[in-house]
Amino acid sequence: MKVSELSRRASVPLPTVKFYLRTGLLPSGERTGVNQSEYGEAHLRRLAAIRALRDIGGLSVEQIADVLRAIDDPALCVRDVLAQSSDAMLARPRGETAPEDAPAFDAALSEIDQVFTTLDWRVRPGSQTRRQLAETLLALRRTGFPGLPAGAFLEYAHHVEPIARMEIDYFHDAATGSREQVVESSVVGTVLWERVITALRRAAHESLVSRIPEFSEPPAP
Amino acid sequence: MKVSELSRRASVPLPTVKFYLRTGLLPSGERTGVNQSEYGEAHLRRLAAIRALRDIGGLSVEQIADVLRAIDDPALCVRDVLAQSSDAMLARPRGETAPEDAPAFDAALSEIDQVFTTLDWRVRPGSQTRRQLAETLLALRRTGFPGLPAGAFLEYAHHVEPIARMEIDYFHDAATGSREQVVESSVVGTVLWERVITALRRAAHESLVSRIPEFSEPPAP
Repeated sequence: MKVSELSRRASVPLPTVKFYLRTGLLPSGERTGVNQSEYGEAHLRRLAAIRALRDIGGLSVEQIADVLRAIDDPALCVRDVLAQSSDAMLARPRGETAPEDAPAFDAALSEIDQVFTTLDWRVRPGSQTRRQLAETLLALRRTGFPGLPAGAFLEYAHHVEPIARMEIDYFHDAATGSREQVVESSVVGTVLWERVITALRRAAHESLVSRIPEFSEPPAP
Repeated sequence: MKVSELSRRASVPLPTVKFYLRTGLLPSGERTGVNQSEYGEAHLRRLAAIRALRDIGGLSVEQIADVLRAIDDPALCVRDVLAQSSDAMLARPRGETAPEDAPAFDAALSEIDQVFTTLDWRVRPGSQTRRQLAETLLALRRTGFPGLPAGAFLEYAHHVEPIARMEIDYFHDAATGSREQVVESSVVGTVLWERVITALRRAAHESLVSRIPEFSEPPAP
């Protein structure tokens, strides 16, 4: 198909498609004339992936480029593609430095490692998930909530593990098609289903709160 | 305490604190001199809340202002504070228009409503959670994943409901202190624990993938 049809079928404005082509997020089509190229289903799929990562995942163009670089690297095994693209998605924006004071952050990291050990989860020492969890632990402490966040992390993990298991089982069973297609759909699925989980959680909150009579009472004057 | 001590104790740079004071995100202190004001624990808590909403929640200053306006509105019951602040957090950035074609979007909204009816969840027709879920349903369809997304939404909901129930039960039991404190901690908690859930999910993915031998095999040449 021509670039105009690609734009129409993907519902992505033509200037945006051209921007993705210029920056290399979208690979060039097959040149068929001086100013004309042919695009295929892989381009359509890639555009849907870019759009999902940007619109739903809120990723920057830089982050998307890092994710796609991992997906397109023919030397990486599936595990490493997923690890690298996960790190790219969770990475702090370039140039932004850690706002935390280092000793408190290192202590929080140790607590997170302890949680992973208790759960028998194998997570790379450099995984961005560890950094995010340590930062959130510090933020929870800063707000001065009562209770023991590190203990609650375990409780959350027990709820989250079956979700992750369902997803990886599904991914494993459905892992047919080209290697690029498999990892692309896995990365995009991680982002899209994350949004489903977080939106469902908030919808469930709304429903549960609406059933507690005192929360609907007008505030005392 | 003076504004400099507030900045230090909250680990928020002084120019940032002054920016929050100028824009009204942070209420003014009690004036004690021509160029001096006194700040208290409520300011410290509010700064931690702003920082969590910005750094962890990724909210814009406009969104944070909307959230804080709901928290500070003395006429709202707890349910309405939570609904309004949830909508403010999930709202599309101002000026950005819906990219979807309307009939497909309306059909997706009906599917989401059907999911809520099946679950017996009470969610306002105007809730931003419905919009997010409908958008994500369309994005999932666009990527061309196999399977039935609407059916999978139900499966996810069954996993997510116990998490939301644990949180609302905890919030309900812990709902002591001033009304402002209660809703502030609930809104901030929603954002911080969401990050815990999403980071734990990705850590669990990493651990599960590392145990599937074929995912660690080098790609076929």
